[in-house]
Amino acid sequence: MIRPATRVLAAELAAHAGESVEVCGWLHRRRALKSVTFLILRDRSGLAQVVLPAGGEDLPEETVLRVRGTVVPDSAAPGGAEVARAEVEVLSSRAAPPPFDLYRPAVPASLPTVLDHAPVALRHPLLRAPYEIGAASVAGFRAALDGLGFTEIHTPKVVSSATESGANVFALDWFGRRAYLAQSPQFFKQAMVGVFERVYETGPVFRAEPHDTARHLAQYTSLDAELGFVRDHRDVMAVLRTAVAGMTAAVAERAQRAVQALGAVLPEVPEEIPSLHFAEAMELLGADEPDLSPEHERRLSRWALEEHGSEFLYVTGYPMAKRPFYTHPEPGRPACSNSFDLLFRGLELVTGGQRLHRIEDYEAALAARGEPREPYAGYLQSFAHGMPPHGGFALGLERWTARLTGADNIRRTTLFPRDLHRLTP
Amino acid sequence: MIRPATRVLAAELAAHAGESVEVCGWLHRRRALKSVTFLILRDRSGLAQVVLPAGGEDLPEETVLRVRGTVVPDSAAPGGAEVARAEVEVLSSRAAPPPFDLYRPAVPASLPTVLDHAPVALRHPLLRAPYEIGAASVAGFRAALDGLGFTEIHTPKVVSSATESGANVFALDWFGRRAYLAQSPQFFKQAMVGVFERVYETGPVFRAEPHDTARHLAQYTSLDAELGFVRDHRDVMAVLRTAVAGMTAAVAERAQRAVQALGAVLPEVPEEIPSLHFAEAMELLGADEPDLSPEHERRLSRWALEEHGSEFLYVTGYPMAKRPFYTHPEPGRPACSNSFDLLFRGLELVTGGQRLHRIEDYEAALAARGEPREPYAGYLQSFAHGMPPHGGFALGLERWTARLTGADNIRRTTLFPRDLHRLTP
Repeated sequence: MIRPATRVLAAELAAHAGESVEVCGWLHRRRALKSVTFLILRDRSGLAQVVLPAGGEDLPEETVLRVRGTVVPDSAAPGGAEVARAEVEVLSSRAAPPPFDLYRPAVPASLPTVLDHAPVALRHPLLRAPYEIGAASVAGFRAALDGLGFTEIHTPKVVSSATESGANVFALDWFGRRAYLAQSPQFFKQAMVGVFERVYETGPVFRAEPHDTARHLAQYTSLDAELGFVRDHRDVMAVLRTAVAGMTAAVAERAQRAVQALGAVLPEVPEEIPSLHFAEAMELLGADEPDLSPEHERRLSRWALEEHGSEFLYVTGYPMAKRPFYTHPEPGRPACSNSFDLLFRGLELVTGGQRLHRIEDYEAALAARGEPREPYAGYLQSFAHGMPPHGGFALGLERWTARLTGADNIRRTTLFPRDLHRLTP
Repeated sequence: MIRPATRVLAAELAAHAGESVEVCGWLHRRRALKSVTFLILRDRSGLAQVVLPAGGEDLPEETVLRVRGTVVPDSAAPGGAEVARAEVEVLSSRAAPPPFDLYRPAVPASLPTVLDHAPVALRHPLLRAPYEIGAASVAGFRAALDGLGFTEIHTPKVVSSATESGANVFALDWFGRRAYLAQSPQFFKQAMVGVFERVYETGPVFRAEPHDTARHLAQYTSLDAELGFVRDHRDVMAVLRTAVAGMTAAVAERAQRAVQALGAVLPEVPEEIPSLHFAEAMELLGADEPDLSPEHERRLSRWALEEHGSEFLYVTGYPMAKRPFYTHPEPGRPACSNSFDLLFRGLELVTGGQRLHRIEDYEAALAARGEPREPYAGYLQSFAHGMPPHGGFALGLERWTARLTGADNIRRTTLFPRDLHRLTP
């Protein structure tokens, strides 16, 4: 019979020197020496060392334990203290061997192995760390926008028509009718500008993405915002700057351990992020194309770093032909748009812009693309009944975390990724 | 040409008496008197009165305006001040008449009318209010769990097999394969207990719910939590109590205006929520059934209010036969479970409990139900490799908001509801 005590986390152990405590966690590593056996326990806060007599507790790694004992300062132990005079209770089954050694400092496994065994593999501190950074980022995003008077919304993920882009949608059987997974909350968040003026959503979006690349996924977490009463896209860019700065600050504050473990370098977010018009960008690149290639994005990012010392760069004024029908054109330059991308470390991180807000402009835009009005009937309600100039943006959470952590594949920052080939675990 | 000024929200107007300001919003109401015309402007903070000469600005309601003028104290105006010497600029198209008068204090429209015209109808302060309460509730949920060391996760909404309940799932074409919309993040959040110990998710879940009732939806927002190293379900109930108290406090703090507009009465959340075992509940009800009927839930809620002065009641120990296969049985009473429902104001609000955590218990539970192991292979990984005793719960956001606001139908607290009949707008 083990005497009761209050659970102490591994990271708090040193503060309880001399006390009788309980620590719980996974058996990270068992090290049997001649005179003594060490159990290294892993909990959500870190590692704790438990010392037992030689030959003590022959248990496989990953078995879950509750240990009661006395905290003894020990400079060689993680955190500067260990648990001695320990009694050990096994809480789980005896663990089967994990797909690779979780106690090794580096990860000795390929990406497919990690993904196939995610429920166990992500216990490795280095593989878990990106999700701690992701959670902190989302918290920072929400806090920044809450501070600006935004309201959080939750919108439908199933829609009746594949209106927003037409391509790359998943079809669904909805009580015998055909429906589609939403590619974005675009139409809903615009409608809600009519209600709340400023809204955000942090939720899943779906793209039937047939490309098998390191940066595309079929489901990802979209951080969406939309706001009314803007002058033009520049007001949206200012809000995005605040959001990204809030995300970065929250990562520094809430995910310090993960940042250190990964050796991630957090960016400086300039008060004013440098900005280039698409036409200027093309000139700088010596190119003449309707869109930026990945190589263009990398070169422009390098330019921003060299010229402005900024890891962020706005490219504005994208050709209207490459933007969705609801995009607001640039006044006096109708082939260009009041839209932008935010490049971060060589990659497009955010797309956004000012939207059309007058019903007659929507009707003209749909007519110009030869689109019928009917599938857009619900969407057009907002504009028929009075909408202010507005705009917004969408930031892919997993892509942001990948850039922050230097991940070579977005699947390293996506919990249970879904793609062309992968639907499990 | 209108001189530039800084935008002031309606609610801040009185603080700017004597100043030259800009107010922006929707024309909530135009009132033409003999000697003067009033424009009542609605923005996200409330209403502002603008005074013009007689016959001024003959614009339809819901047109979006920017008004510049001087703030003059006026005790008869909303907020105690009005904008005089005003210049008016129209920002939107001239608005078409809304489906019903948005300026009337009550809502003169049926639920179907409200739902069909949601982008405009929800501009009515009474129809918008539940979503302000919902947003505050989610913020409170997250803050409470953040404070307890939980990590937020984002899990797949598309899964390869309909394992969790078998019934009521939406089927999907996934690159030519059959897949399903996730009914809950249950399996994923359990797996992540193995990584983070304590996790939560606030996201959409999907039920192909063939019932057309006032409390069922095909998509709703599930506030899910799961935590490891619990003694049993009582530790889960304590965390849920903290979450609900945090939600209530956040509503009081962040959604005061909405609470007042709706005359909603926030509950007291007792330090310890009263609890009844299922067997005791049946005795109290003079019944002998394997589940609680809606009438039972109402009677038990009344009992808790009368006996304990509590609007909340836990019912624990539900029959195992009525709970999912991963439910932990009650020690010494194997026909009962370590699970619970939380009743709130006559309705089940939350379901939760302790889960099995040993691989051999899962294998036995699946075998007992005649289920193959293969579709659960990914799920079972966690348990094979060591999992602590754990449990969790799921709270339906829209149902919570409906109870708080006294809504007669959950569609009044769901943004663009999706059900058997409704897939638009």
